Amino acid sequence: MHDLNLGNPVFAAYAIAASIMVLKAVAMSWLTVVRMIGVGGGFRSPEDLKKTPLNPHPDPKQLLPDDRVDRIRRIQLNDLENLPFFLVAGLLYVTTGPPLLLAQWLFYGYVVTRLLHFAAYFSAQIHEVRAALWTPGSLIIVFMSIRVIMAALGW
Amino acid sequence: MHDLNLGNPVFAAYAIAASIMVLKAVAMSWLTVVRMIGVGGGFRSPEDLKKTPLNPHPDPKQLLPDDRVDRIRRIQLNDLENLPFFLVAGLLYVTTGPPLLLAQWLFYGYVVTRLLHFAAYFSAQIHEVRAALWTPGSLIIVFMSIRVIMAALGW
Amino acid sequence: MHDLNLGNPVFAAYAIAASIMVLKAVAMSWLTVVRMIGVGGGFRSPEDLKKTPLNPHPDPKQLLPDDRVDRIRRIQLNDLENLPFFLVAGLLYVTTGPPLLLAQWLFYGYVVTRLLHFAAYFSAQIHEVRAALWTPGSLIIVFMSIRVIMAALGW
Repeated sequence: MHDLNLGNPVFAAYAIAASIMVLKAVAMSWLTVVRMIGVGGGFRSPEDLKKTPLNPHPDPKQLLPDDRVDRIRRIQLNDLENLPFFLVAGLLYVTTGPPLLLAQWLFYGYVVTRLLHFAAYFSAQIHEVRAALWTPGSLIIVFMSIRVIMAALGW
Repeated sequence: MHDLNLGNPVFAAYAIAASIMVLKAVAMSWLTVVRMIGVGGGFRSPEDLKKTPLNPHPDPKQLLPDDRVDRIRRIQLNDLENLPFFLVAGLLYVTTGPPLLLAQWLFYGYVVTRLLHFAAYFSAQIHEVRAALWTPGSLIIVFMSIRVIMAALGW
Repeated sequence: MHDLNLGNPVFAAYAIAASIMVLKAVAMSWLTVVRMIGVGGGFRSPEDLKKTPLNPHPDPKQLLPDDRVDRIRRIQLNDLENLPFFLVAGLLYVTTGPPLLLAQWLFYGYVVTRLLHFAAYFSAQIHEVRAALWTPGSLIIVFMSIRVIMAALGW
């Protein structure tokens, strides 16, 4: 239960959860693009005001912040602050040989709370809802990291 | 073709591509420093206005945004939104035991398009060029992640 | 000395260093929350101005930047620019089968300089101090990445 190959069901569960999180993170980039096209602004680089086929009528206002775009950027930044550390902590946790059921709860529980966190942030729920959906994932990372340290020290 | 050691040519290809991407990401930090010294500004922290050997004539203007510095910061943020997910998706993809030639195309193709994306962003090409060089890398991550999920589910 | 399991002392050293860095990164999110509560502001989302149990007296000023909060955000961004690349470079470095003592110096040296970098940034030391504590970690990542490329190429 601690080998890093897909024949190990703990690793397979990790691989599925990790891949879903990677796809989620990549989707935020695409969603930012979709929003910028929909809004026709929220751009960041001065060269984005050049006249091109995709931007036939450039306007300096296109460089102003737009909350419909910035909301996705905030969600993406939140992903960057969380997902890479889940991805590494989860991989290391596999090497501790945890019980399959516990590992599945942690990995898939993380995925579910992050997708719900996205839904809450995307639909501009109050901070309390967002925090309640962010906290479990953060605690899952902490739990796995502590377990890895304990296992590496032979405790 | 699915072991995580350098005797496996698929893993060796991943290790080379991943290490180049890590070096590229680290280089952005150094490039930001080089630009800040060249510009003599683009700083972010209030304490950077203290008089020190490296900043003998502090000026509040040094904390204003400067596009020569901010361009590198935008490139670096784009790296943070992409590279960590390539690094994890690529590692997991190795465990699916892909054909060596396909894996090399995906790994090295990612590296090449990211380096070209950097060149385009750095030289302020129009958005269409940047997008054309960003998209293949994003699709490579998506393809690898889906393959990992399928392999983990035994499909 | 190159297997990715906790029976390999090089991997165990990596797992401990990596887990400490993950916990450090996660702690920045919690510290941001603590600071926002302490300051009663530094928020980023328009919906954070809704009246809720945790924010009984909303005020538009709560969305203005506050350096006590922004300092933690800058520290966290610095983590995002560095830690994911250490985490991946370190894992790949394990597969090169390095001498245990050298690997421990690199892994634990990285951890120590990053914690000191945090202390310097948090207490607003001058840029020279911050830079002196950031540079060794960056060079450790560069060294490990180059070693991985050399080992993968059979040099």
